[in-house]
Amino acid sequence: MDRRKIILEESQIPEKWYNIIADMPNKPLPPLHPGTLEPIGPDSLAPLFPEALIKQEVTTDKWVTIPDEVRHMYSLWRPTPLYRAYGLEKALDTPAKIYYKYEGVSPSGSHKPNTAIPQAYYNKQEGIKRITTETGAGQWGSALSFACQHFGIKCEVYMVKLSFHDKPYRKIMMNTWGADVYPSPSDRTQAGRNILAANPDSPGSLGIAISEAVEMAATRDDTKYALGSVLNHVKLHQTIIGLEAIKQLEIAGDLPDIVIAPFGGGSNFAGLAFPFLRLNMDEGKNIRCIASEPASCPKLTRGVFRYDFGDTAGMTPLLPMYTLGHDFIPAPIHAGGLRYHGAGVIVSQLLKDKLIEAQAHDNIEIFEAGVQFARAEGIIPAPEANHGIATAIAEAKKCREEGVSKTILFNLCGHGNFDMKAYDDYFAGKIKQHELTQAEIDASIARLTTPLIPS
Amino acid sequence: MDRRKIILEESQIPEKWYNIIADMPNKPLPPLHPGTLEPIGPDSLAPLFPEALIKQEVTTDKWVTIPDEVRHMYSLWRPTPLYRAYGLEKALDTPAKIYYKYEGVSPSGSHKPNTAIPQAYYNKQEGIKRITTETGAGQWGSALSFACQHFGIKCEVYMVKLSFHDKPYRKIMMNTWGADVYPSPSDRTQAGRNILAANPDSPGSLGIAISEAVEMAATRDDTKYALGSVLNHVKLHQTIIGLEAIKQLEIAGDLPDIVIAPFGGGSNFAGLAFPFLRLNMDEGKNIRCIASEPASCPKLTRGVFRYDFGDTAGMTPLLPMYTLGHDFIPAPIHAGGLRYHGAGVIVSQLLKDKLIEAQAHDNIEIFEAGVQFARAEGIIPAPEANHGIATAIAEAKKCREEGVSKTILFNLCGHGNFDMKAYDDYFAGKIKQHELTQAEIDASIARLTTPLIPS
Repeated sequence: MDRRKIILEESQIPEKWYNIIADMPNKPLPPLHPGTLEPIGPDSLAPLFPEALIKQEVTTDKWVTIPDEVRHMYSLWRPTPLYRAYGLEKALDTPAKIYYKYEGVSPSGSHKPNTAIPQAYYNKQEGIKRITTETGAGQWGSALSFACQHFGIKCEVYMVKLSFHDKPYRKIMMNTWGADVYPSPSDRTQAGRNILAANPDSPGSLGIAISEAVEMAATRDDTKYALGSVLNHVKLHQTIIGLEAIKQLEIAGDLPDIVIAPFGGGSNFAGLAFPFLRLNMDEGKNIRCIASEPASCPKLTRGVFRYDFGDTAGMTPLLPMYTLGHDFIPAPIHAGGLRYHGAGVIVSQLLKDKLIEAQAHDNIEIFEAGVQFARAEGIIPAPEANHGIATAIAEAKKCREEGVSKTILFNLCGHGNFDMKAYDDYFAGKIKQHELTQAEIDASIARLTTPLIPS
Repeated sequence: MDRRKIILEESQIPEKWYNIIADMPNKPLPPLHPGTLEPIGPDSLAPLFPEALIKQEVTTDKWVTIPDEVRHMYSLWRPTPLYRAYGLEKALDTPAKIYYKYEGVSPSGSHKPNTAIPQAYYNKQEGIKRITTETGAGQWGSALSFACQHFGIKCEVYMVKLSFHDKPYRKIMMNTWGADVYPSPSDRTQAGRNILAANPDSPGSLGIAISEAVEMAATRDDTKYALGSVLNHVKLHQTIIGLEAIKQLEIAGDLPDIVIAPFGGGSNFAGLAFPFLRLNMDEGKNIRCIASEPASCPKLTRGVFRYDFGDTAGMTPLLPMYTLGHDFIPAPIHAGGLRYHGAGVIVSQLLKDKLIEAQAHDNIEIFEAGVQFARAEGIIPAPEANHGIATAIAEAKKCREEGVSKTILFNLCGHGNFDMKAYDDYFAGKIKQHELTQAEIDASIARLTTPLIPS
């Protein structure tokens, strides 16, 4: 009987996260103060994050120890299985070997708890009573609710009002784990009240929700803020995915030629790919790492590398990143987790240095890929995950055309149990391509007044 | 670090299912023809089921070999993890040790694929091109869709019209796995057309949907019918759950004092409990096995043991079972999988012989149990699963009161990702107790004209 999945005992959960900054040939440029354009230090993050996470944000240590209590919580669903996709290989009639790491087995159904758990843990260690955050479709909000519930921390989620009404099931999931969920803009914050005064019917946006969550954290002593992607410490925590995958592939006696993950802010991709990039840098391997982004939000494949704001409203420090411009509004695709204008700074530097690659896929292609996967492998993926599948299928087809067998690994970052409406739209022919013209991208980037990267 | 879960390699998936009939001190009484009241033989099942499944329905062999191809499909999610519920033990402050077997990791999210896969496999072996079935809330329909997709069999699901409109996500899940789903009553069958002629706005019922699915199978040569619980072969397939759990508890160095599972038609309970009952019968163990049923549908705790029909309309053979009467309409509780008037024949005989026990829980108690579990253990259970949790909590509290440590095992048969509306209703105070008076039960049973069990 062919072995379908490689599992590990919970005693084999890695004991350290991997920090790629230690190995990067060119370190990321510093964040800048938007007013002075001077580099800012870790102190400026103190109102929002606990000290331990700020240290992780700037550390250059190669390995960071995972606390025992975090590993014990990870053991609720980790190590996650590594699957050999026999069904998909057969359906594609490809000589390629395809593996996927399945993160959908977590309680909230995606990779997000990998960082929600340590973030809640470090806040708890420092006596924080409440964590605020924003959420769009709800993946991050539900992961953080689950984590805060365990550590006895109050969780306050500002959920984009449109999603709050459109996706009530994610909200109820957060309530079940004891979180308070508010439609944003709300009347609880000055930021929210300002928006509502100007537009009482505002449907909200991720940018507005961030402003509300940040304001609540910055103005209360017992409260901090948490972010689900983009930042260095978030990427650090997610490396648990790739570290496990390497152990599992060793058991299978395999090493991938190509590693693939969906790309929103970067933590999903970083989580799987960074430990494999270490093999390239430390051990002279030559593994291609490909980030999969939506064609409707193509910052990696069609954006520019320069300083830009992390949020829509322009309140954050300036970050050196691949960006489409911070006021770029991505089309309303179902893969809500990938609708972000910029890329985290580490991944941006790696792409600039050609240490990683990127591919974009249109909205219909990714649902074709998702349905083909569901029928061949039995797991219905989240729309975000379908982007990685689309890249894997494209590479496997290339293997068939070229008659070469390569080993492909991708991150199946979450299940689609809360995304059935998206599949219904696909079957009903309602999914649109959202063609993005070069003129639109040029116009968005031309609106930027933020500094260029000094060359 | 405390070990949270016991996992097994897929090579440790059991090679045989366990057939409790071989060990029962009193064998189940035969089914009777409703007209002649004579015992009927396996031949009468031939229009509906493939030969291999009919053989399994009546076999007295103690062990039945699981085909390799079925084991390979099981390996997509099996062996399922066995968890030690440290979080729940702590929340209850109990000296009891609590374990749960988690079946929600299957692609469709419950234990149902354990039998859907072999049913589809045996149909495929005999050249069947299409399988019909009924589904209420959609758990069984989605499991069978998943299984048929793999084996290249067309799946035709008659879904109770009310659920078809109320629970569209389960329908879309079935479509994603390639099944055709029809709201029942439909105009595709004579049974459906008759109902629609009398009542064009009929919301449907499980009884009507069964009639449609059976008619479609009985009148087409290339088509068979499949059932998701009640029958002996379904219970047989589900014993994979308990057989794995015994291996896992051996690794933990433990043996349960009490084994608990939710009870609808009996396959969930049979799946976990029968292998432990074997230990009682073969090895002189003294493990209490408790079936957990809703107080609003209490056939085990308040029904009668006599011959009754398996369906509402009275079309099936007469079966010797604990029943509330085949026209008993259970209250519309969220645990749709437990809304069945009768108990499968094997479980009924075991209860009559006092080899198993039963407990009933009211509708609010089970949601209190489910929310407590979700907050303590991180997994949000299906409403059906909450019944088993409620019994486990009741027994663990008894341990605390009596100051004794017992080992409790229950079946966490599915996740609640498609049941968020139920939790929302609970938080909004909309869950009702559905008190069932003795007069109501007496009246329903008094309507029975089916034969009594000869004593």
